[in-house]
Amino acid sequence: MKKILIIGIGAGDPDYMTVQAINALNQVDVFFVMDKGVAKEKLVALRKQIIERFIDGDDYRIVEATSPERRRDDTDYRSTVDELNRDKQRLFEGLVADELRDGEVGAFLVWGDPSLYDSTIRIIEAIAQDGRHAFDYDVIPGISSVQALAARHKVPLNLIGRSIAITNGRALAEGFPANVDSVVVMLDSQNAYRHLAHEDLDIYWGAYVGTPDEILISGKLRDVMDEIERVRAEARRTHGWIMDTYLLRKRDGK
Amino acid sequence: MKKILIIGIGAGDPDYMTVQAINALNQVDVFFVMDKGVAKEKLVALRKQIIERFIDGDDYRIVEATSPERRRDDTDYRSTVDELNRDKQRLFEGLVADELRDGEVGAFLVWGDPSLYDSTIRIIEAIAQDGRHAFDYDVIPGISSVQALAARHKVPLNLIGRSIAITNGRALAEGFPANVDSVVVMLDSQNAYRHLAHEDLDIYWGAYVGTPDEILISGKLRDVMDEIERVRAEARRTHGWIMDTYLLRKRDGK
Ligand SMILES: C[S@@+](CC[C@H](N)C(=O)[O-])C[C@H]1O[C@@H](n2cnc3c(N)ncnc32)[C@H](O)[C@@H]1O
Ligand SMILES: C[S@@+](CC[C@H](N)C(=O)[O-])C[C@H]1O[C@@H](n2cnc3c(N)ncnc32)[C@H](O)[C@@H]1O
Repeated sequence: MKKILIIGIGAGDPDYMTVQAINALNQVDVFFVMDKGVAKEKLVALRKQIIERFIDGDDYRIVEATSPERRRDDTDYRSTVDELNRDKQRLFEGLVADELRDGEVGAFLVWGDPSLYDSTIRIIEAIAQDGRHAFDYDVIPGISSVQALAARHKVPLNLIGRSIAITNGRALAEGFPANVDSVVVMLDSQNAYRHLAHEDLDIYWGAYVGTPDEILISGKLRDVMDEIERVRAEARRTHGWIMDTYLLRKRDGK
Repeated sequence: MKKILIIGIGAGDPDYMTVQAINALNQVDVFFVMDKGVAKEKLVALRKQIIERFIDGDDYRIVEATSPERRRDDTDYRSTVDELNRDKQRLFEGLVADELRDGEVGAFLVWGDPSLYDSTIRIIEAIAQDGRHAFDYDVIPGISSVQALAARHKVPLNLIGRSIAITNGRALAEGFPANVDSVVVMLDSQNAYRHLAHEDLDIYWGAYVGTPDEILISGKLRDVMDEIERVRAEARRTHGWIMDTYLLRKRDGK
């Protein structure tokens, strides 16, 4: 029997690694490291650093594969994502079949927490369901960018007794979610917070949170949104890529 | 200057501790451990285990204090919570003033992640704002019960490209949140999922997640809700207390 571990490595600081994740790393025979083109080189480097830093000995192999990219034209979002996930499933199936021997443990290191806006669990589950490859798998949680953001801003995610929404830029552009006063936005490449400039909101924004490049800006949305947009564009130019997240909170909320 | 660390210790398994949290523990002179009556003895014991296991040496003090309890009568929820938080603030202020010397580091160990349904950040922030006590403070994220639940059930929290709500039993009793298909429910002492029996939902339920007493049940809500209610009542009787969380997902969601 083969075994797959889906290991959350935290979203930025290598010190976000948990004891459970470190113990898991040390059982692994083969690491599957997905390369996502030049923009994500840094994330691949971080994974390798984590492997080197936290593993005793060097009794493991690293298999690199190029992760399929989502087509960025204006075809339907859902269908391009579906297509992407099919491509990924085919790739992962090949890796599990060809690169992992019976009795061995293979691992995918997932940025942040594997349960949050990441397709690895879904893909591995689909391969397991499919039944052509027999393997066990486990998921190890990690510190997500949502928690890293809240910790670095030193703010609670929820107001007392109230709900939270976690969403993406695309959904936020359609308006502030109903019945919540705290919204965390990930995967926003379009500065969707600008759509809410007319509402009385506080924003807690962070880029590269937990890394040496971390940038944090907070304040009344209307007062700081131009600064965020400018800093964001600048950081993206400097680094060649950006990962940022923000919490929006209704001001009249208690 | 005094320093306060609000350290997330993870929600169950001591192996959820991060390297950052372990490093933080080792800087602490005084641990403030809140005792919450017999029901929470186990959580206090777990905190002490974590302190002993992860600290090199014994160069620290533990100060125990009895955390004020929320009155459980039928007065207004918000006002009893406000009152509770005022009591807690007074207590924490006393601890910082009397038990922590200048130049020392004090710590509160928070179950799970400090940003999620926990009042410690809010209270420490209020004391800092108040200005009568000069201190710095920092927040260290931890693995929340939400992530632990998802990892143990091996399910993503969100559907592809879709939003998530995190809410409590009280809010869920008013209906399934609008515009989301995935809802995580915490702090539900009333089996609020029963209100949604008419909807086509899957439930992923977990109690004492990450601990040796862990119980996991999942399935179509209608099919498993009686079992969950029974198992939950039984577990609560056996242990004298319960902590459980669940993810509800719309079945027609994709
Ligand atoms: C594909 S999602 C993966 C999320 C990840 N699984 C997690 O738990 O954080 C990528 C998004 O996460 C957010 N993100 C990840 N790491 C971040 C960091 N260190 N700082 C700010 N945002 C981050 C950004 O919103 C980015 O667009
Ligand atoms: C006051 S909140 C604190 C949440 C905590 N800060 C976190 O990050 O998980 C307490 C609620 O968390 C959930 N919870 C905490 N630990 C849990 C565990 N190990 N298993 C299941 N639910 C848990 C339960 O819903 C409980 O009512």
